[in-house]
Amino acid sequence: MSKSFNYKLKVFYEDTDAGGVVYYANYLKFLERARSEAIYSLGYSNTDLKKKFNILIIVKSCSIEYKKFAVLEDNLDIKTSLKSISKTSFVMTQMINRKNESIASAEICLVCVNSKGKPTKLPVEIDNLLKEYIN
Amino acid sequence: MSKSFNYKLKVFYEDTDAGGVVYYANYLKFLERARSEAIYSLGYSNTDLKKKFNILIIVKSCSIEYKKFAVLEDNLDIKTSLKSISKTSFVMTQMINRKNESIASAEICLVCVNSKGKPTKLPVEIDNLLKEYIN
Amino acid sequence: MSKSFNYKLKVFYEDTDAGGVVYYANYLKFLERARSEAIYSLGYSNTDLKKKFNILIIVKSCSIEYKKFAVLEDNLDIKTSLKSISKTSFVMTQMINRKNESIASAEICLVCVNSKGKPTKLPVEIDNLLKEYIN
Amino acid sequence: MSKSFNYKLKVFYEDTDAGGVVYYANYLKFLERARSEAIYSLGYSNTDLKKKFNILIIVKSCSIEYKKFAVLEDNLDIKTSLKSISKTSFVMTQMINRKNESIASAEICLVCVNSKGKPTKLPVEIDNLLKEYIN
Repeated sequence: MSKSFNYKLKVFYEDTDAGGVVYYANYLKFLERARSEAIYSLGYSNTDLKKKFNILIIVKSCSIEYKKFAVLEDNLDIKTSLKSISKTSFVMTQMINRKNESIASAEICLVCVNSKGKPTKLPVEIDNLLKEYIN
Repeated sequence: MSKSFNYKLKVFYEDTDAGGVVYYANYLKFLERARSEAIYSLGYSNTDLKKKFNILIIVKSCSIEYKKFAVLEDNLDIKTSLKSISKTSFVMTQMINRKNESIASAEICLVCVNSKGKPTKLPVEIDNLLKEYIN
Repeated sequence: MSKSFNYKLKVFYEDTDAGGVVYYANYLKFLERARSEAIYSLGYSNTDLKKKFNILIIVKSCSIEYKKFAVLEDNLDIKTSLKSISKTSFVMTQMINRKNESIASAEICLVCVNSKGKPTKLPVEIDNLLKEYIN
Repeated sequence: MSKSFNYKLKVFYEDTDAGGVVYYANYLKFLERARSEAIYSLGYSNTDLKKKFNILIIVKSCSIEYKKFAVLEDNLDIKTSLKSISKTSFVMTQMINRKNESIASAEICLVCVNSKGKPTKLPVEIDNLLKEYIN
């Protein structure tokens, strides 16, 4: 059984560029908002992770494919799911859609690091929560 | 009697800077999101204004005062109201709050321009709608 | 006698929006780049100010007037000068030009704060350096 | 024989986030600045490409690996080279370095599209210029 987290947003002027479409780097902002909200939905926040476990979840790599242009005032949906998980890292799949159209899809590798920026084990309770999202 | 429009947002990593707080320019993004949503709440969108009336509402000037720092994951409220209106322009007051604390306040002068960027009269129906928001 | 600091930049896609012009909030990024480079030209950096004096220079208020649209690939010049200075704060005037055209002008009030965010006296050597820039 | 294009930039507050490092999406802005300057160095600009050939060069996909954190006031170098080229698209490799350290590396697939957003042949003179950059 698989689960995914849905996040909705509207495209504002700040997100677009002179080509009349959403600027390519700004989709990564959308993806991060969706991942942050996914963490909130699990009962945690980035601030909590730092305070409680002294860890930070950072992006190790990101691969994104652009399929259609999103434009000003589009309503986008982002579906975030977990592809795989290891001791210190996990891979998320994120799909950006406008109704039934695929706008972009991405695969993000995230790593759990300690206060010195070194990879460290995911806290057990986070690991357990994440595993429920494996697709 | 006065009316104002309320807009809520959460602060994400993209909004912050290495000082640990929301980057000063990014508050202007928040203000623009709130103004866009205020227009939507009146039954219009920026795209509609262009298609139906061939106008664009642009920012002529902006004055913002920063009072407290907003930080990652803060929930902010923006209260937008109309201060004054003339034939081709109007002035909006926008207050950014975190619960009962004032984070920033701004005054924005907006101008209605035609497709050549020249100031032009506000369409009557927009003018009428806006006047209901005068404080 | 007065002095001012000049900074040049080119407009990239990231700076523009779907209106085909530079997004209004992004001019504040340009202004901050120019102020940072002005500090570097005095022999300091934001990092130095924090390490050496444990202070941060923050924006207290910002007032900007938009005069002409800047567009993709424009070469802009920013002229930064000091308008006034007090014990804990100073006011800068910044003009954004494209050749001889004025694109925008701004007045920025900056405050020197300590590690707790409280206004504190400008270090004597910074105060002396800044005073040479008074217009 | 291979050629590459070098672009330098400094990290400003706008580029960083509350983690104290450059925000992950902002590296894509840096990459796009470098690619734009590479085009300028060939004697063209994005505006020229549109006016002269009625084409737009858009990003089809982007894959980036983050290796070290860049921080405020870092001086970064971006080395851009061409990996491969087909009739309507080409792949660029971009390395972001801080002196001898690798900060991030990326592979970007760009497509030449017409005014309707459909893939179209690269203009012969652009194709010829690009081929000189093949690694």
